[in-house]
Amino acid sequence: MKPDESRIAYDGKLIDVTVERWGDHEREIVEHPGAVAVVAVDREGYVTLVRQQREPARKLLVELPAGTLEEGEEPAETARRELAEETGLHGGDWRSVTTFWTTPGFCRERMHLFFAEGVEAGDASPDEDEDVELVRWPVAEIERHLHEIEDAKTLAGLLLFLRDREAA
Amino acid sequence: MKPDESRIAYDGKLIDVTVERWGDHEREIVEHPGAVAVVAVDREGYVTLVRQQREPARKLLVELPAGTLEEGEEPAETARRELAEETGLHGGDWRSVTTFWTTPGFCRERMHLFFAEGVEAGDASPDEDEDVELVRWPVAEIERHLHEIEDAKTLAGLLLFLRDREAA
Repeated sequence: MKPDESRIAYDGKLIDVTVERWGDHEREIVEHPGAVAVVAVDREGYVTLVRQQREPARKLLVELPAGTLEEGEEPAETARRELAEETGLHGGDWRSVTTFWTTPGFCRERMHLFFAEGVEAGDASPDEDEDVELVRWPVAEIERHLHEIEDAKTLAGLLLFLRDREAA
Repeated sequence: MKPDESRIAYDGKLIDVTVERWGDHEREIVEHPGAVAVVAVDREGYVTLVRQQREPARKLLVELPAGTLEEGEEPAETARRELAEETGLHGGDWRSVTTFWTTPGFCRERMHLFFAEGVEAGDASPDEDEDVELVRWPVAEIERHLHEIEDAKTLAGLLLFLRDREAA
Protein backbone atom coordinates (compact mmCIF):
# COMPACT_ATOMS: atom_id res chain seq x y z
CA MET A 1 0.00 0.00 0.00
CA LYS A 2 1.87 3.04 -1.31
CA PRO A 3 0.85 6.49 -2.57
CA ASP A 4 1.43 7.45 -6.21
CA GLU A 5 2.98 10.71 -5.12
CA SER A 6 3.88 12.43 -1.90
CA ARG A 7 4.94 15.98 -1.10
CA ILE A 8 5.72 17.82 2.10
CA ALA A 9 3.22 20.64 2.48
CA TYR A 10 4.35 21.82 5.93
CA ASP A 11 7.69 21.23 7.61
CA GLY A 12 7.22 21.91 11.31
CA LYS A 13 8.96 21.29 14.59
CA LEU A 14 7.08 18.35 16.15
CA ILE A 15 4.91 17.58 13.12
CA ASP A 16 5.00 17.80 9.34
CA VAL A 17 2.11 17.63 6.91
CA THR A 18 2.41 15.44 3.82
CA VAL A 19 -0.03 15.47 0.93
CA GLU A 20 -0.25 12.03 -0.68
CA ARG A 21 -1.95 11.23 -3.95
CA TRP A 22 -3.70 7.83 -4.03
CA GLY A 23 -5.21 7.26 -7.47
CA ASP A 24 -7.74 10.04 -8.00
CA HIS A 25 -7.84 11.39 -4.44
CA GLU A 26 -5.40 13.24 -2.22
CA ARG A 27 -4.85 12.72 1.50
CA GLU A 28 -3.50 15.35 3.89
CA ILE A 29 -1.51 13.52 6.55
CA VAL A 30 0.00 14.83 9.77
CA GLU A 31 3.36 13.13 10.26
CA HIS A 32 4.25 12.35 13.87
CA PRO A 33 7.08 10.21 15.29
CA GLY A 34 4.72 8.10 17.42
CA ALA A 35 4.17 8.05 21.15
CA VAL A 36 3.87 5.96 24.29
CA ALA A 37 1.50 5.94 27.27
CA VAL A 38 1.73 4.04 30.55
CA VAL A 39 -0.83 2.77 33.06
CA ALA A 40 1.49 2.80 36.08
CA VAL A 41 0.32 1.24 39.34
CA ASP A 42 2.46 1.31 42.49
CA ARG A 43 2.76 -1.22 45.32
CA GLU A 44 0.15 0.66 47.33
CA GLY A 45 -2.42 0.05 44.57
CA TYR A 46 -2.57 3.60 43.19
CA VAL A 47 -2.51 4.54 39.52
CA THR A 48 -0.62 7.78 38.80
CA LEU A 49 -1.86 10.20 36.17
CA VAL A 50 -0.75 13.69 35.20
CA ARG A 51 -2.78 16.88 35.05
CA GLN A 52 -1.36 19.45 32.68
CA GLN A 53 -2.33 22.40 30.52
CA ARG A 54 -3.26 21.26 27.02
CA GLU A 55 -3.25 24.26 24.74
CA PRO A 56 -5.27 22.60 21.94
CA ALA A 57 -8.06 21.89 24.46
CA ARG A 58 -7.64 25.26 26.21
CA LYS A 59 -7.82 23.51 29.58
CA LEU A 60 -6.12 21.20 32.05
CA LEU A 61 -6.54 17.52 31.21
CA VAL A 62 -5.89 14.41 33.31
CA GLU A 63 -3.99 11.86 31.26
CA LEU A 64 -1.78 8.81 31.44
CA PRO A 65 1.93 9.65 31.63
CA ALA A 66 2.98 9.75 27.98
CA GLY A 67 5.53 11.08 25.57
CA THR A 68 6.87 11.20 22.05
CA LEU A 69 9.26 8.65 20.56
CA GLU A 70 12.74 9.96 19.98
CA GLU A 71 14.76 8.98 16.92
CA GLY A 72 16.13 5.47 17.24
CA GLU A 73 14.48 4.85 20.60
CA GLU A 74 12.47 1.69 21.28
CA PRO A 75 8.92 2.38 22.58
CA ALA A 76 9.58 0.47 25.83
CA GLU A 77 12.62 2.65 26.47
CA THR A 78 10.67 5.86 25.76
CA ALA A 79 7.92 4.70 28.10
CA ARG A 80 10.31 4.06 31.02
CA ARG A 81 12.08 7.36 30.40
CA GLU A 82 8.90 9.44 30.14
CA LEU A 83 7.30 7.80 33.19
CA ALA A 84 10.39 8.52 35.29
CA GLU A 85 10.73 12.10 34.00
CA GLU A 86 7.08 13.04 34.50
CA THR A 87 6.35 11.17 37.73
CA GLY A 88 9.59 9.81 39.22
CA LEU A 89 8.09 6.30 39.10
CA HIS A 90 10.46 3.52 38.07
CA GLY A 91 11.03 -0.22 38.33
CA GLY A 92 8.08 -2.61 38.44
CA ASP A 93 6.84 -5.26 36.03
CA TRP A 94 6.20 -4.01 32.52
CA ARG A 95 3.96 -5.33 29.77
CA SER A 96 3.54 -4.09 26.22
CA VAL A 97 -0.26 -4.19 25.87
CA THR A 98 -1.28 -2.92 22.45
CA THR A 99 -0.66 -0.24 19.86
CA PHE A 100 -3.26 1.97 18.24
CA TRP A 101 -3.57 4.98 15.95
CA THR A 102 -4.76 8.07 17.80
CA THR A 103 -6.71 9.46 14.84
CA PRO A 104 -6.01 7.41 11.72
CA GLY A 105 -8.11 9.42 9.26
CA PHE A 106 -5.46 12.11 8.91
CA CYS A 107 -2.58 11.50 11.34
CA ARG A 108 0.32 9.03 11.40
CA GLU A 109 0.67 8.98 15.19
CA ARG A 110 0.88 5.43 16.54
CA MET A 111 0.53 5.04 20.29
CA HIS A 112 2.23 2.22 22.20
CA LEU A 113 0.44 1.34 25.44
CA PHE A 114 2.18 -0.22 28.44
CA PHE A 115 1.10 -1.47 31.85
CA ALA A 116 3.70 -1.05 34.61
CA GLU A 117 2.76 -2.66 37.91
CA GLY A 118 4.57 -2.49 41.23
CA VAL A 119 6.41 0.73 40.31
CA GLU A 120 8.36 2.62 42.98
CA ALA A 121 8.43 6.32 43.84
CA GLY A 122 11.39 8.56 42.97
CA ASP A 123 12.18 12.10 41.89
CA ALA A 124 10.53 13.51 38.77
CA SER A 125 12.40 15.75 36.32
CA PRO A 126 9.83 17.23 33.93
CA ASP A 127 10.86 19.24 30.87
CA GLU A 128 11.05 22.99 31.39
CA ASP A 129 7.87 23.67 29.44
CA GLU A 130 5.91 20.91 31.20
CA ASP A 131 3.98 22.00 34.27
CA VAL A 132 2.71 18.67 35.47
CA GLU A 133 0.67 17.90 38.58
CA LEU A 134 0.53 14.28 39.69
CA VAL A 135 -2.88 12.72 40.34
CA ARG A 136 -3.13 9.42 42.23
CA TRP A 137 -6.25 7.31 42.33
CA PRO A 138 -6.73 3.97 44.09
CA VAL A 139 -7.27 1.37 41.37
CA ALA A 140 -10.65 0.52 42.92
CA GLU A 141 -11.77 4.13 42.28
CA ILE A 142 -10.74 4.40 38.61
CA GLU A 143 -14.26 3.45 37.55
CA ARG A 144 -15.91 6.40 39.24
CA HIS A 145 -13.29 8.83 37.86
CA LEU A 146 -13.74 7.76 34.24
CA HIS A 147 -16.18 10.57 33.49
CA GLU A 148 -13.36 13.06 34.23
CA ILE A 149 -11.22 11.66 31.42
CA GLU A 150 -11.31 13.61 28.16
CA ASP A 151 -8.34 12.02 26.41
CA ALA A 152 -8.67 9.02 24.07
CA LYS A 153 -5.47 7.13 25.02
CA THR A 154 -6.25 7.54 28.74
CA LEU A 155 -9.80 6.27 28.35
CA ALA A 156 -8.66 3.30 26.26
CA GLY A 157 -5.70 2.55 28.55
CA LEU A 158 -7.64 2.66 31.82
CA LEU A 159 -10.55 0.65 30.40
CA LEU A 160 -8.16 -2.02 29.09
CA PHE A 161 -6.44 -2.10 32.47
CA LEU A 162 -9.75 -2.58 34.32
CA ARG A 163 -10.79 -5.43 31.99
CA ASP A 164 -7.40 -7.06 32.39
CA ARG A 165 -7.73 -7.01 36.19
CA GLU A 166 -11.26 -8.38 36.08
CA ALA A 167 -10.12 -11.23 33.83
CA ALA A 168 -7.17 -12.08 36.13
CA MET B 1 -6.59 30.34 28.91
CA LYS B 2 -5.44 32.17 25.77
CA PRO B 3 -2.21 32.30 23.77
CA ASP B 4 -0.18 35.53 23.63
CA GLU B 5 0.09 35.19 19.87
CA SER B 6 -1.19 32.89 17.18
CA ARG B 7 -0.29 32.52 13.51
CA ILE B 8 -1.40 30.14 10.78
CA ALA B 9 1.62 28.14 9.66
CA TYR B 10 -0.22 25.84 7.23
CA ASP B 11 -3.56 26.39 5.59
CA GLY B 12 -4.76 23.01 4.33
CA LYS B 13 -7.92 21.35 3.09
CA LEU B 14 -9.17 19.30 6.08
CA ILE B 15 -6.64 20.65 8.59
CA ASP B 16 -4.65 23.79 9.33
CA VAL B 17 -1.61 24.17 11.55
CA THR B 18 -1.47 27.08 13.99
CA VAL B 19 1.62 28.08 15.95
CA GLU B 20 0.64 29.61 19.29
CA ARG B 21 2.97 31.41 21.67
CA TRP B 22 2.24 30.80 25.37
CA GLY B 23 4.69 32.81 27.48
CA ASP B 24 8.14 31.56 26.61
CA HIS B 25 7.14 28.48 24.65
CA GLU B 26 5.46 27.84 21.33
CA ARG B 27 2.91 25.16 20.51
CA GLU B 28 2.28 23.72 17.08
CA ILE B 29 -1.40 22.82 16.88
CA VAL B 30 -3.30 20.90 14.21
CA GLU B 31 -6.69 22.55 13.75
CA HIS B 32 -9.54 20.15 13.02
CA PRO B 33 -13.32 20.77 12.98
CA GLY B 34 -14.04 17.89 15.37
CA ALA B 35 -15.64 14.54 14.75
CA VAL B 36 -18.22 11.98 15.81
CA ALA B 37 -18.21 8.20 16.28
CA VAL B 38 -21.10 5.81 16.87
CA VAL B 39 -21.43 2.43 18.59
CA ALA B 40 -24.47 1.25 16.61
CA VAL B 41 -26.25 -1.93 17.67
CA ASP B 42 -29.19 -3.31 15.73
CA ARG B 43 -32.25 -5.22 16.93
CA GLU B 44 -30.53 -8.54 16.19
CA GLY B 45 -27.79 -7.66 18.71
CA TYR B 46 -25.01 -6.94 16.22
CA VAL B 47 -22.65 -4.00 16.35
CA THR B 48 -21.68 -2.63 12.92
CA LEU B 49 -18.16 -1.40 12.23
CA VAL B 50 -16.44 -0.30 9.04
CA ARG B 51 -13.24 -1.64 7.50
CA GLN B 52 -11.49 0.87 5.27
CA GLN B 53 -8.11 1.82 3.88
CA ARG B 54 -6.36 4.28 6.18
CA GLU B 55 -3.51 5.87 4.30
CA PRO B 56 -1.71 7.19 7.42
CA ALA B 57 -1.57 3.63 8.78
CA ARG B 58 -0.85 2.08 5.34
CA LYS B 59 -3.45 -0.59 6.02
CA LEU B 60 -7.10 -1.43 6.43
CA LEU B 61 -8.47 -0.64 9.88
CA VAL B 62 -11.71 -1.71 11.55
CA GLU B 63 -13.34 1.29 13.21
CA LEU B 64 -16.59 2.67 14.53
CA PRO B 65 -18.63 4.52 11.90
CA ALA B 66 -17.38 8.08 12.22
CA GLY B 67 -17.08 11.38 10.45
CA THR B 68 -16.07 15.00 10.54
CA LEU B 69 -18.30 17.81 11.81
CA GLU B 70 -19.52 20.12 9.12
CA GLU B 71 -19.82 23.85 9.66
CA GLY B 72 -22.83 24.71 11.78
CA GLU B 73 -23.85 21.08 12.25
CA GLU B 74 -24.66 19.67 15.70
CA PRO B 75 -22.62 16.57 16.61
CA ALA B 76 -25.79 14.45 17.02
CA GLU B 77 -26.87 15.43 13.52
CA THR B 78 -23.43 14.61 12.06
CA ALA B 79 -23.51 11.25 13.82
CA ARG B 80 -26.90 10.27 12.37
CA ARG B 81 -25.87 11.46 8.91
CA GLU B 82 -22.50 9.67 8.91
CA LEU B 83 -23.95 6.43 10.29
CA ALA B 84 -26.62 6.38 7.59
CA GLU B 85 -24.17 7.28 4.80
CA GLU B 86 -21.54 4.72 5.76
CA THR B 87 -23.75 1.83 6.86
CA GLY B 88 -27.37 2.56 5.94
CA LEU B 89 -28.33 2.15 9.61
CA HIS B 90 -30.90 4.60 10.94
CA GLY B 91 -33.49 5.06 13.66
CA GLY B 92 -33.01 3.53 17.11
CA ASP B 93 -32.43 5.06 20.53
CA TRP B 94 -29.53 7.48 20.70
CA ARG B 95 -27.41 8.59 23.64
CA SER B 96 -24.63 11.17 23.74
CA VAL B 97 -22.04 9.32 25.85
CA THR B 98 -18.92 11.43 26.21
CA THR B 99 -16.49 13.66 24.35
CA PHE B 100 -12.73 13.32 24.27
CA TRP B 101 -9.67 14.74 22.53
CA THR B 102 -8.09 12.26 20.13
CA THR B 103 -4.53 13.48 20.75
CA PRO B 104 -4.54 16.63 22.87
CA GLY B 105 -0.80 17.27 22.92
CA PHE B 106 -0.83 18.79 19.44
CA CYS B 107 -4.29 18.47 17.87
CA ARG B 108 -7.59 20.28 18.38
CA GLU B 109 -9.79 17.38 17.28
CA ARG B 110 -12.59 16.72 19.75
CA MET B 111 -14.52 13.48 19.30
CA HIS B 112 -18.19 13.12 20.25
CA LEU B 113 -19.17 9.54 21.06
CA PHE B 114 -22.71 8.21 20.69
CA PHE B 115 -24.44 4.92 21.39
CA ALA B 116 -27.31 4.07 19.02
CA GLU B 117 -29.29 0.98 20.00
CA GLY B 118 -32.06 -0.74 18.09
CA VAL B 119 -30.98 0.74 14.74
CA GLU B 120 -32.56 -0.52 11.51
CA ALA B 121 -30.96 -1.56 8.23
CA GLY B 122 -31.16 0.61 5.11
CA ASP B 123 -29.13 1.61 2.07
CA ALA B 124 -25.69 3.12 2.54
CA SER B 125 -24.40 5.96 0.37
CA PRO B 126 -20.68 6.33 1.06
CA ASP B 127 -18.64 9.24 -0.33
CA GLU B 128 -16.93 8.58 -3.63
CA ASP B 129 -13.46 8.31 -2.08
CA GLU B 130 -14.65 6.03 0.71
CA ASP B 131 -14.36 2.32 0.03
CA VAL B 132 -16.02 0.94 3.13
CA GLU B 133 -16.71 -2.69 4.00
CA LEU B 134 -19.23 -3.34 6.77
CA VAL B 135 -18.22 -5.64 9.62
CA ARG B 136 -20.88 -7.02 11.97
CA TRP B 137 -20.08 -8.66 15.28
CA PRO B 138 -22.56 -10.07 17.82
CA VAL B 139 -22.28 -7.88 20.92
CA ALA B 140 -21.34 -10.97 22.94
CA GLU B 141 -18.26 -11.42 20.72
CA ILE B 142 -16.92 -7.85 20.90
CA GLU B 143 -14.61 -8.85 23.74
CA ARG B 144 -12.73 -11.45 21.73
CA HIS B 145 -12.37 -9.08 18.76
CA LEU B 146 -10.83 -6.25 20.79
CA HIS B 147 -7.27 -7.29 19.90
CA GLU B 148 -8.09 -6.54 16.22
CA ILE B 149 -8.83 -2.89 17.01
CA GLU B 150 -6.01 -0.45 16.29
CA ASP B 151 -7.94 2.80 16.53
CA ALA B 152 -8.21 4.82 19.75
CA LYS B 153 -11.84 6.00 19.42
CA THR B 154 -13.01 2.49 18.54
CA LEU B 155 -11.22 0.92 21.51
CA ALA B 156 -12.56 3.56 23.89
CA GLY B 157 -16.07 3.42 22.41
CA LEU B 158 -16.43 -0.37 22.46
CA LEU B 159 -14.93 -0.65 25.98
CA LEU B 160 -17.32 2.03 27.28
CA PHE B 161 -20.21 0.22 25.61
CA LEU B 162 -19.28 -3.11 27.21
CA ARG B 163 -19.02 -1.51 30.68
CA ASP B 164 -22.33 0.20 30.19
CA ARG B 165 -24.04 -3.11 29.35
CA GLU B 166 -22.47 -4.87 32.30
CA ALA B 167 -23.66 -2.12 34.62
CA ALA B 168 -27.21 -2.26 33.22
